[in-house]
Amino acid sequence: MRVFQIEGDWGFDNLKLSDRPEPEPGPGQVLISMRMASLNARDLIVPERGYGRATGELPLIPVSDGVGEVVAIGEGVTRVSVGDRVCPTYFQNWTAGAPTPERFASALGGPLDGVMADLVCLSEEGVVKAPDYLTDAEAATLPCAALTAWSAIVTHGQTRAGDRILIQGTGGVALFALAFAKMQGAHVTVISSSDEKLEKVRAMGADETINYRETEDWARASRAITADRGGYDNIIELGGARTLPLSLRAVRPGGTLSMIGVLSGLNIEASLGPIVARQVRLQGVTVGHRDGFEAMLTAMAQHQTRPVLGKSFAFEDLKPALEHLRAGGHFGKTLIRF
Amino acid sequence: MRVFQIEGDWGFDNLKLSDRPEPEPGPGQVLISMRMASLNARDLIVPERGYGRATGELPLIPVSDGVGEVVAIGEGVTRVSVGDRVCPTYFQNWTAGAPTPERFASALGGPLDGVMADLVCLSEEGVVKAPDYLTDAEAATLPCAALTAWSAIVTHGQTRAGDRILIQGTGGVALFALAFAKMQGAHVTVISSSDEKLEKVRAMGADETINYRETEDWARASRAITADRGGYDNIIELGGARTLPLSLRAVRPGGTLSMIGVLSGLNIEASLGPIVARQVRLQGVTVGHRDGFEAMLTAMAQHQTRPVLGKSFAFEDLKPALEHLRAGGHFGKTLIRF
Amino acid sequence: MRVFQIEGDWGFDNLKLSDRPEPEPGPGQVLISMRMASLNARDLIVPERGYGRATGELPLIPVSDGVGEVVAIGEGVTRVSVGDRVCPTYFQNWTAGAPTPERFASALGGPLDGVMADLVCLSEEGVVKAPDYLTDAEAATLPCAALTAWSAIVTHGQTRAGDRILIQGTGGVALFALAFAKMQGAHVTVISSSDEKLEKVRAMGADETINYRETEDWARASRAITADRGGYDNIIELGGARTLPLSLRAVRPGGTLSMIGVLSGLNIEASLGPIVARQVRLQGVTVGHRDGFEAMLTAMAQHQTRPVLGKSFAFEDLKPALEHLRAGGHFGKTLIRF
Amino acid sequence: MRVFQIEGDWGFDNLKLSDRPEPEPGPGQVLISMRMASLNARDLIVPERGYGRATGELPLIPVSDGVGEVVAIGEGVTRVSVGDRVCPTYFQNWTAGAPTPERFASALGGPLDGVMADLVCLSEEGVVKAPDYLTDAEAATLPCAALTAWSAIVTHGQTRAGDRILIQGTGGVALFALAFAKMQGAHVTVISSSDEKLEKVRAMGADETINYRETEDWARASRAITADRGGYDNIIELGGARTLPLSLRAVRPGGTLSMIGVLSGLNIEASLGPIVARQVRLQGVTVGHRDGFEAMLTAMAQHQTRPVLGKSFAFEDLKPALEHLRAGGHFGKTLIRF
Repeated sequence: MRVFQIEGDWGFDNLKLSDRPEPEPGPGQVLISMRMASLNARDLIVPERGYGRATGELPLIPVSDGVGEVVAIGEGVTRVSVGDRVCPTYFQNWTAGAPTPERFASALGGPLDGVMADLVCLSEEGVVKAPDYLTDAEAATLPCAALTAWSAIVTHGQTRAGDRILIQGTGGVALFALAFAKMQGAHVTVISSSDEKLEKVRAMGADETINYRETEDWARASRAITADRGGYDNIIELGGARTLPLSLRAVRPGGTLSMIGVLSGLNIEASLGPIVARQVRLQGVTVGHRDGFEAMLTAMAQHQTRPVLGKSFAFEDLKPALEHLRAGGHFGKTLIRF
Repeated sequence: MRVFQIEGDWGFDNLKLSDRPEPEPGPGQVLISMRMASLNARDLIVPERGYGRATGELPLIPVSDGVGEVVAIGEGVTRVSVGDRVCPTYFQNWTAGAPTPERFASALGGPLDGVMADLVCLSEEGVVKAPDYLTDAEAATLPCAALTAWSAIVTHGQTRAGDRILIQGTGGVALFALAFAKMQGAHVTVISSSDEKLEKVRAMGADETINYRETEDWARASRAITADRGGYDNIIELGGARTLPLSLRAVRPGGTLSMIGVLSGLNIEASLGPIVARQVRLQGVTVGHRDGFEAMLTAMAQHQTRPVLGKSFAFEDLKPALEHLRAGGHFGKTLIRF
Repeated sequence: MRVFQIEGDWGFDNLKLSDRPEPEPGPGQVLISMRMASLNARDLIVPERGYGRATGELPLIPVSDGVGEVVAIGEGVTRVSVGDRVCPTYFQNWTAGAPTPERFASALGGPLDGVMADLVCLSEEGVVKAPDYLTDAEAATLPCAALTAWSAIVTHGQTRAGDRILIQGTGGVALFALAFAKMQGAHVTVISSSDEKLEKVRAMGADETINYRETEDWARASRAITADRGGYDNIIELGGARTLPLSLRAVRPGGTLSMIGVLSGLNIEASLGPIVARQVRLQGVTVGHRDGFEAMLTAMAQHQTRPVLGKSFAFEDLKPALEHLRAGGHFGKTLIRF
Repeated sequence: MRVFQIEGDWGFDNLKLSDRPEPEPGPGQVLISMRMASLNARDLIVPERGYGRATGELPLIPVSDGVGEVVAIGEGVTRVSVGDRVCPTYFQNWTAGAPTPERFASALGGPLDGVMADLVCLSEEGVVKAPDYLTDAEAATLPCAALTAWSAIVTHGQTRAGDRILIQGTGGVALFALAFAKMQGAHVTVISSSDEKLEKVRAMGADETINYRETEDWARASRAITADRGGYDNIIELGGARTLPLSLRAVRPGGTLSMIGVLSGLNIEASLGPIVARQVRLQGVTVGHRDGFEAMLTAMAQHQTRPVLGKSFAFEDLKPALEHLRAGGHFGKTLIRF
């Protein structure tokens, strides 16, 4: 079968179209014929071994997100049947509960082989059924970006109606966070450098928008929005080094910064004094568990939430697709067709 | 009556022994004849207006912690009676719930006048009864340092028996954190630069100790202690810029750094990547509310917990007392006798 | 000034229109000129001393809910100004945190004097500002019924988008619970004995409705709605003895029954076995605290939520108004005009 | 190999010593040579099909709790090795998170075959390593009784130092609850009908004891113990119909009743009014998940907690052992030697 894999040595240049024998499902396993995959910022980092030892070993099949059809099941499988359309879970061993080193060591697309293969063989515990109302392309976008947003807004954020939430940018996680925050009844501000993108997020339900190219001090500009409580309840912190100092000013006393992203560097030079003086919480969000994934799918199906899709590429064009992602400027998830 | 106050201008030199008329309790207020006060690192920062506008206005009576006797009550007071021994609460308006700008703006000893006065007049909502088993000196140490430790270990930390906790240093908050963590059944590691102090904390119940002068990379040295779970559940982060990078390595996936302290600068130059990649939580801890104070006192009384006392100074020797605090090297809370 | 009070002895017959001298606000107090009041089931129980000693002492001014204008403030008041439109809080001393005997002993309309008086004098801590977008009649309905629903759905229930919630009936708490559950993105089933009322709640957003007169075993009938998870996440239990056995069957493993109501008797004869065998939680909900009230108002203002109003009566017609409430059959809150 | 199984028809008389072929571990499975088992009240109910359809199908091997040695592992097993001493988990499919119908349907000893067999074959996900410091007999007592107590005191109860906890009786769950509550720094009252047993629990750390045969109204008798807060924070409710009305009076406003037990009937005739009026929580506790089991073992190992052992019986004497359990009067867990 066709696979893409990083082989020989690390580095983007060593990401190659290749062949592997077709796997067969053992007891408790399912064989998935992949239909669509979807890219995340993380998929740019893995080929460079950007997570060090945690990136895994070569050869490595990259990419964590996708959707496919179950074409065979091993002995004793009960969670899914042949013909079901499923998404793999990002962390294969994290069904629920708190993270552990073992659970974090089970990520698809590094250190475990990912979904850039015609056939993927996984434990039945490592897949969830895709809701019928979603297209293949839509379902393919969920495992990493959507679940990260759900974890930030719902699992950790426990967002209440009336909460003020600020979302940085209009990338994959940001757009899902907007959808989920609105579902939970929150008031949402989105910041971006593009008026065109801000117009799009307003159409998706954003209550306020700030163009941070025009209004560099968006922390100050947002004061009127949150005046009654002294700042945002939750800031979906996606920018890292550049945004953190502003986020620390814009969050309310006792509020939360949801720390997200796979930016290879988060080298911060900042004063963390406000964390102490105003009881701020910085909550790292690392995708999430399968229970969260299934709760998210139930909510999405009820609300008929549709992921925002970007450009799609053929399987063999993985590298141009990654270049497209790296270039930025896109709106909606980048897709791979099988 | 005698007061110490910062007058004329900000600065340690403007901290002066002075006089003010005796206050009288209005409706809902209590008049307290102070008996003992206790110093915190914060009391070194206030005279320099180290918290900016939040420090308050001149003249300002400093110091938040102490104990006294109720000598008069205003109309309608029901929470305490004349003759009761009480501690003021650090935040006068924070009885319970989440912090707000208003609740944070009600700290004693800046921006509100503190306890360095023979008589202090407060709302009955701003005091708690001191348990009988404590001496005046012991009770005086509780409002800021003890409650901060309680909030970190219990209110936010929800410490369970078997949790692994690391405490940095042997200052006021650290020693209370040790006592409370042991009360909750946790396993505690203390790091310090002094073998003599480490011997003392072992006598107080610390399970493991590391001299970070001898073992600079204490994050590595602690691996054996937490091997089964990949790091500490909670690190009582008191060191700031120097310790944070090590703490981020020593905490377990999904674990917490309790960010505490009044160090005027927390200018950090560090990679916050592990926060994202390992779902770490940085939880700022800003003293706490009155409900927490009362829960702490109940627990302390049950366990007959005794605060560790340091040197005591006469009222008029506030400045030498502050110098003693600034010099470091002490063990136990620095006290002021009225 | 005019007041209604229970005087001489307990009993509905002793509820009389009477006079009291006008109060003056002391320090920290506000004087409110009442504009509208709103009735709750509880107001039928108080005149009969249905809460025993906790009902208070005679003479007692009944009714907890209403809205008025601040016409004078005492010394030191900062939370509100003359001219502000405010609602009293149901529990005058419960601003935040966990309930205590003292907090529960501070309910308006028994044991404390309530709002059936031209002027009401309260602590500034015991009022919240009414949002501008609400009429007087709408604002008057909030302190007890709306906050109880908010506490059940948000504070305790921590409702997530996609949660399945069942609400019993179409009374005051039920209609607010419907509004708040939809705000939080939940899927809501309402049961009632009236097709006409079920039509109204569908118009308000209910996803499913069951007429329990036609479908007596609504627990069985609801299985299709919750098949994927084995029952409801949260059941707003308002019926008591008759509904509890069905609710215990209709709730999911690990789910919650929000126990609400002021029915004088909850004499249950039932098997509580499912609580143990399926890890069910029964969570009593007793109105709520001021922090919850203010969070609810923020959410309502954002969503422009409008309470459902029923019949309104003149001040002097309190007794006919109570009879109207007792008769049942109404839809929307019963109001008293001042 | 030898097994005990209920065969032919339900009923205690049909519990018979029998034979089954030795199982072999498939991929992901472990084969355990059982060494000791331990009985719970539940093991008296299963043979009578007391849980209805949820009891499982015949023939059924009973008993959930025990310890054994791993003698073979299937392909791909990584959690344990041959030679490890392990306990099975009560719910084979509940590793973490909230309960679901599927997780609850995976209990050992009904509906799944239990541990009364020389060899037991389980998924590697369904076992935990037993700590070295425990004897076989001690380790055998943990899966159901100890974890239920841990879930009540720690997972759900989030017990804090200073909390007041009341425990009913001196059975298996009660004695573990006492140990864990003391670990967490709580103040514990135990009630029993036997002065001799109360003396034993005082030696184990109980702070207060009440003989409910002498002092029938123990709710009243406990008022002095909890006067400062109006009742207990958490009552470990093990008595059911007879104790619930008293527990509802003895719990504090906002407090919790941990509903535990496998008494086939919990037919209660009682007023649940206090649940509503005082915001009481009734929290069903159904054993717990594997994450809780492992956290409990870590805590126990740190504190060197030793389960209380009762009489032990030979494998073939299962029926006399169950009769011994049924008779009551014992103190400490009843054991089965293999």
